[in-house]
Amino acid sequence: MGNKALNKKALSDALARRLPAYYRHVCIMLAEGKQTVTSGELAKRVGNTSAQVRQDFFTCGGVENYHPDTLKNWLSDLLGIKEEHHMVVVGAGNLGRAIISFKDFNNDGFFIDAVFDNNLMLDGMQVCGIPVLNVATLDEYLAANRTDIVVIATPANVAEDILDKAIRGGVKGVWNFAPVDLRSNEAIEVQNVHLSDSLLTLSFRINEKEHWKSEN
Amino acid sequence: MGNKALNKKALSDALARRLPAYYRHVCIMLAEGKQTVTSGELAKRVGNTSAQVRQDFFTCGGVENYHPDTLKNWLSDLLGIKEEHHMVVVGAGNLGRAIISFKDFNNDGFFIDAVFDNNLMLDGMQVCGIPVLNVATLDEYLAANRTDIVVIATPANVAEDILDKAIRGGVKGVWNFAPVDLRSNEAIEVQNVHLSDSLLTLSFRINEKEHWKSEN
Repeated sequence: MGNKALNKKALSDALARRLPAYYRHVCIMLAEGKQTVTSGELAKRVGNTSAQVRQDFFTCGGVENYHPDTLKNWLSDLLGIKEEHHMVVVGAGNLGRAIISFKDFNNDGFFIDAVFDNNLMLDGMQVCGIPVLNVATLDEYLAANRTDIVVIATPANVAEDILDKAIRGGVKGVWNFAPVDLRSNEAIEVQNVHLSDSLLTLSFRINEKEHWKSEN
Repeated sequence: MGNKALNKKALSDALARRLPAYYRHVCIMLAEGKQTVTSGELAKRVGNTSAQVRQDFFTCGGVENYHPDTLKNWLSDLLGIKEEHHMVVVGAGNLGRAIISFKDFNNDGFFIDAVFDNNLMLDGMQVCGIPVLNVATLDEYLAANRTDIVVIATPANVAEDILDKAIRGGVKGVWNFAPVDLRSNEAIEVQNVHLSDSLLTLSFRINEKEHWKSEN
């Protein structure tokens, strides 16, 4: 696979955040029937420069050629997409339900096997065809069922507790939507999603534009 | 406010994405009762270096001192948080509801005034106390009601159409959750949120760690 760089040191967070966008746009270009992809075209779609695209691909070990099929395969390997990922969602509120209802995941091998909630009224019910279980049984579930990723869609005050359960359960990663920063460590990888951050970035861009306009 | 840099050119996307995290952590430190903040401490919390924090603050025009109150005020100004932002959400599905149920926004002056949906069964109902209106009346609504930000929580195939309506309605920004990249232009700022990107980044980190482990 030529992913030599991966053996040396962890790649930067900025690069790790750019890779999914490359993958997404290569898939779109494939669906559009493109026979070739240039670094310039890909750069334009993801909003950076062709030099950055080439540097990123080099940093990740390099890709043989820029045929969209080759690129998709190479990025899939890099992102671990070809493997099955078994997930559970903790929190069956609006956000948990929104995550479950993203059907896109299944296409990339991410399967949601169960949803956990502390609302006993939901115990035994289903959300989008996924069974809802009592969160008190999460430890037991993780011990008995292969689970790669725990999705935390709970209030902030219980997120650390769920992280601990995920670590005890031997889970590889946590995708955290609770408004608190959980930390990756030797035992587990964590991605924190702060939805309101992108709203503030938007507000910043609006503010910047208005300020710029008023001065020019 | 000393935001001189803002007059010259648009700041980088990477910086624009880091600013909300600075704001979030300064608020947490204030809530913890911290009297002083160092660039090193802030850097550690947001996961970068103190040199980066100082560079970012300098690029944004500089801050007088590192008292948490001063920092919060300065970042609030920069992010446009002190102003009221009136928002509408288009799409009353799970994701739209999840966005509406984030109560945090109100604290920062972001108000959701209405929700639009094409499901006429919902017309006249409420979601978390917010009225649901027929999306066919969106143009009319935007013409009559000050709206700063349109949140798109619809399927991909109608997102461009909603963007056009937002532009016609004189809206300043679009916060897009539909799985399609909408572009900012002279008329409007756009932030695209691709939830599954952060899942792929997590998958990449897990893959990277396993690959690294297996080689060492």
